[in-house]
Amino acid sequence: MAALLWKSCSALHSSVSRHARFAVVCRSMASKTPVGFIGLGNMGNPMAKNLLKHGYPLVAFDVFPEACKEIQDTGAQIVDSPSDVAEKADRIITMLPSSLNAIDVYTGPNGVLKKVKKGSLLIDSSTIDPAVSKELAKETEKMGAVFMDAPVSGGVGAARSGNLTFMVGGVEQEFDAAKELLSCMGANVVYCGEVGTGQAAKICNNMLLAIGMIGTAEAMNLGIRLGLDPKLLAKILNMSSGRCWSSDTYNPVPGVMEGVPSSNNYQGGFGTTLMTKDLGLAQDSATKTKTPTPLGSLSHQVYRLMCSKGYAQKDFSSVFQFLREEENL
Amino acid sequence: MAALLWKSCSALHSSVSRHARFAVVCRSMASKTPVGFIGLGNMGNPMAKNLLKHGYPLVAFDVFPEACKEIQDTGAQIVDSPSDVAEKADRIITMLPSSLNAIDVYTGPNGVLKKVKKGSLLIDSSTIDPAVSKELAKETEKMGAVFMDAPVSGGVGAARSGNLTFMVGGVEQEFDAAKELLSCMGANVVYCGEVGTGQAAKICNNMLLAIGMIGTAEAMNLGIRLGLDPKLLAKILNMSSGRCWSSDTYNPVPGVMEGVPSSNNYQGGFGTTLMTKDLGLAQDSATKTKTPTPLGSLSHQVYRLMCSKGYAQKDFSSVFQFLREEENL
Amino acid sequence: MAALLWKSCSALHSSVSRHARFAVVCRSMASKTPVGFIGLGNMGNPMAKNLLKHGYPLVAFDVFPEACKEIQDTGAQIVDSPSDVAEKADRIITMLPSSLNAIDVYTGPNGVLKKVKKGSLLIDSSTIDPAVSKELAKETEKMGAVFMDAPVSGGVGAARSGNLTFMVGGVEQEFDAAKELLSCMGANVVYCGEVGTGQAAKICNNMLLAIGMIGTAEAMNLGIRLGLDPKLLAKILNMSSGRCWSSDTYNPVPGVMEGVPSSNNYQGGFGTTLMTKDLGLAQDSATKTKTPTPLGSLSHQVYRLMCSKGYAQKDFSSVFQFLREEENL
Amino acid sequence: MAALLWKSCSALHSSVSRHARFAVVCRSMASKTPVGFIGLGNMGNPMAKNLLKHGYPLVAFDVFPEACKEIQDTGAQIVDSPSDVAEKADRIITMLPSSLNAIDVYTGPNGVLKKVKKGSLLIDSSTIDPAVSKELAKETEKMGAVFMDAPVSGGVGAARSGNLTFMVGGVEQEFDAAKELLSCMGANVVYCGEVGTGQAAKICNNMLLAIGMIGTAEAMNLGIRLGLDPKLLAKILNMSSGRCWSSDTYNPVPGVMEGVPSSNNYQGGFGTTLMTKDLGLAQDSATKTKTPTPLGSLSHQVYRLMCSKGYAQKDFSSVFQFLREEENL
Repeated sequence: MAALLWKSCSALHSSVSRHARFAVVCRSMASKTPVGFIGLGNMGNPMAKNLLKHGYPLVAFDVFPEACKEIQDTGAQIVDSPSDVAEKADRIITMLPSSLNAIDVYTGPNGVLKKVKKGSLLIDSSTIDPAVSKELAKETEKMGAVFMDAPVSGGVGAARSGNLTFMVGGVEQEFDAAKELLSCMGANVVYCGEVGTGQAAKICNNMLLAIGMIGTAEAMNLGIRLGLDPKLLAKILNMSSGRCWSSDTYNPVPGVMEGVPSSNNYQGGFGTTLMTKDLGLAQDSATKTKTPTPLGSLSHQVYRLMCSKGYAQKDFSSVFQFLREEENL
Repeated sequence: MAALLWKSCSALHSSVSRHARFAVVCRSMASKTPVGFIGLGNMGNPMAKNLLKHGYPLVAFDVFPEACKEIQDTGAQIVDSPSDVAEKADRIITMLPSSLNAIDVYTGPNGVLKKVKKGSLLIDSSTIDPAVSKELAKETEKMGAVFMDAPVSGGVGAARSGNLTFMVGGVEQEFDAAKELLSCMGANVVYCGEVGTGQAAKICNNMLLAIGMIGTAEAMNLGIRLGLDPKLLAKILNMSSGRCWSSDTYNPVPGVMEGVPSSNNYQGGFGTTLMTKDLGLAQDSATKTKTPTPLGSLSHQVYRLMCSKGYAQKDFSSVFQFLREEENL
Repeated sequence: MAALLWKSCSALHSSVSRHARFAVVCRSMASKTPVGFIGLGNMGNPMAKNLLKHGYPLVAFDVFPEACKEIQDTGAQIVDSPSDVAEKADRIITMLPSSLNAIDVYTGPNGVLKKVKKGSLLIDSSTIDPAVSKELAKETEKMGAVFMDAPVSGGVGAARSGNLTFMVGGVEQEFDAAKELLSCMGANVVYCGEVGTGQAAKICNNMLLAIGMIGTAEAMNLGIRLGLDPKLLAKILNMSSGRCWSSDTYNPVPGVMEGVPSSNNYQGGFGTTLMTKDLGLAQDSATKTKTPTPLGSLSHQVYRLMCSKGYAQKDFSSVFQFLREEENL
Repeated sequence: MAALLWKSCSALHSSVSRHARFAVVCRSMASKTPVGFIGLGNMGNPMAKNLLKHGYPLVAFDVFPEACKEIQDTGAQIVDSPSDVAEKADRIITMLPSSLNAIDVYTGPNGVLKKVKKGSLLIDSSTIDPAVSKELAKETEKMGAVFMDAPVSGGVGAARSGNLTFMVGGVEQEFDAAKELLSCMGANVVYCGEVGTGQAAKICNNMLLAIGMIGTAEAMNLGIRLGLDPKLLAKILNMSSGRCWSSDTYNPVPGVMEGVPSSNNYQGGFGTTLMTKDLGLAQDSATKTKTPTPLGSLSHQVYRLMCSKGYAQKDFSSVFQFLREEENL
């Protein structure tokens, strides 16, 4: 374990691109050859279906048989393990809940790397620790294949409509090959830099998103208590320097905007639990890089508290409700 | 003192509009009659000049003779006290540094209210405690005159170019009269509601602004340390849910945008001291209204710390620099 | 109002001791002459009774007739207003809930200062803004009397048993006179310095108390989740550098200690609402003196949140319960 | 890697005591047989010397030859690797700077576990992630040996004088054997529970210590600015509910106490960098166990900021100086 973890650490500062130029030689680049898909959950399911719609034969796997069954009914071939996926497809997309799951799916006893073909392109769309992405890239490179991290922004709705944004890290020469597949599932595919930078961009965006959302909730709540009409206050903020995505596109105050979770009892959207997970990743990265993040850190704590106070399954804009409750309740 | 302060408190919950409809009767509404201006500092000076440019004769006062001299050279009449201003003008604008100054200028021994004419319109553009605005409105009303709060957003540059935004609180019937004058000095004049809501809107906006700015600085700094290019990260944030005014219009990272203080060594712009003052007002209002503001409160502390670490006179976006310093420095 | 408030502000930096040496001349120092008491609430009631027990005739007032009635039954004379108290007693103790109440009781239309005798000793045991204490001292001095601030630590139990701690600010020459009365109600009477320093000491102590309590709750909770036995962890902390009053005398974890609110469902003790009020005073003072207090500020927000989540009436050690709740609840 | 890391995670919830009862059979329990020592830095050096003083022959290793040389001169035998230590001693103490170093020393290619004898007792006094301690215990158990975590409190001075406190986690039956050695180096050896609880106790104590220290610095600073004498304020806090180790034993204000770093320009003591490291471990554990730690988290950020502002090498009580700096500096 020591050697591997130690490498994992040093990988933070090393490059994985040395052998990558050889990797592309033997991969089948012809479109419409089978694509592998591992992780068929709330997000993976609609993403996989969009690949099918675009005519790609799918070889898929999930640990839950029901999740496999539904995709099988749509036309995908189901196999027994990640390594079996790697045996049948040289382009594979993974969509997993955590760093540990990703490590297991790639490097476990039945993992992708056990049977990966030389020149394969492995794209991980999970949101995980960028340091883990870098380590997986190194292990993949040893097998003569290519690993890219490509986490998404946009929720289940965007996954269904094919409007996700992919933030992609990895060898730049492989970006076009990745984009061919990712653009079937997303409207924006952005190249961010070397391996791990896709995760970094996702994490930084979501940390700022959380800060902006809590800040918007605080400012709206304070303004309302000082006598301002919420719609008017939102309008003023949005034409001023307080403007942010949480105030002008996803306002957390019920009744200010239509079609957002705050006007639907905070159902749907991006759950507090998921935001808390991403803020935990941000804090891990901040600690590793010795970066002070006072507001990011406190935002993590606020969402952590909300998780323990019944808000875990509500949209993360419910922080307005969390802060608002009256003393007499 | 007790009686007055007590009233100040109860004013938080009362309305000042009862007699206001009688107030307008006897005010000279003809344009281009003299306008009073009290407070000729960095902001007041260019604001007063813009009124002169629009053809309004000015009767002005400031405690600093030099400040008076410069406006006198531009054509204003200088008088000896706020009460003398009130004697010669029935529309008066005040631009003062703090709640205590505003209290003194309005209700002090030589204050405006000592000689205010019935029906006068008093517009306070200072950024002060909304509870003080409400109390001043009550005292003004007793004299048969009208008080409105109209704090500004936009700095010295906007004051010079006449592009300020005014957030106006007070009796709605008087808004047009106020707007006639304010639109000489600002591009946006927004009616916010009853007296004090102009201050409330200003305070809430600036609290959210501070939160967004610190959050942007944290996210950009973390991303850079994780290997992202700053310009690329800003671009990604600005097309995603992390987008805010501080990321897309006033980015705190040197080199990301041109024409902002971060690209000019954090000179100019909105000083850390001023932001700290506004965050102090926000915290006072939050405590009075029992509103939880975890991020607003911590932002206040961050800017307070910056003031004591040599950042007092720098633009408030210098929080990026404050957080960024390396361990080896 | 301006003049008074302005003075209030400047009083922060001035001395009130100039004329104090004349004040003592005409006060009746003979023991057992009547003592005034204003404010007969949860704390004032047992404090007044202890003065009675020590043989002091009492002249008392409270705005609530029932509060008066009970003390009357114990032998006190009830009068109609604070000014009536001042007419009949030249040593007066006040115990009031807020700065505004204190201002009203002292300087209001029927306030103590309306009929205070020259040389009277006025001792305010309320916990209020130190700046207000200083202003009240100045107003008192103008009437030829002496004002001291003497807030208490210790709750209702200590008030009943006469074991309060008094932190006294004011002219040092008067301290013995104050101590004669205060030692009937408290076990410790500490001289802190000029007027306002009693409040300052109280506020600083309670801010540190809140920080230590929340910190203890966090550390105990984290340790328990990491597998430590709570009693063992408390023992380890208490023999190490984590030791504090909240860990060794008032441990917030149910079952660790007997005879503390945590072992009585957080009933009794020092209510979350009261702690929140004191933290608000600390923040006001920190803002006025430009003192960074990151943990004090966040502690204020934590207790503010607790007030809105049903913990207002529980002992402040219930922060352990607040932080502990499980995700599944 | 996956398998190992995955186990590392599950180890959080499993027990390592199953086979431990067999482990003791073949270890030489006779006193004064050689003891191994790995990690001869600022802390390890005096600890190793104390074992020598108590008559234990030492077999030692450190990656820095100079560190080895000094111990060799005192009578220890120096070998070439951790595995060589394990070959020659069946009781080994390790004192290493980080989790990664510990992983390498135990499980690396030349690690202790490569040549560990059955029944050996391995005691790790490093301060590391409790989850890593648990994983190392599992790996050790596979080799038929016993692992205990025994982090210390007390700095270099306590290491020299043999007055450290050891917090010990591991199989209870082995505690006496561990205590025999640890009591040569420390005055207190406390059994905390199963493997990892020594680390947990250390981490919780230091998190509370940091919170108490920053809180004391804030309270002292605020009190001083409100006019209190620092020594008097410390005295008041220490007889009241604000009392804590940082106020009564290690006061951060210069001149209040003698013989503490604050009275020696914050030299010596427990460095800010080390406190920051421990707070990072606390945050990692809090995130893994989903424990809200708002003050612990903010304390981490405060010390992180101090590291980047020139306080890295100063004692952690220098937070008083950090918060105190005047606006005009």
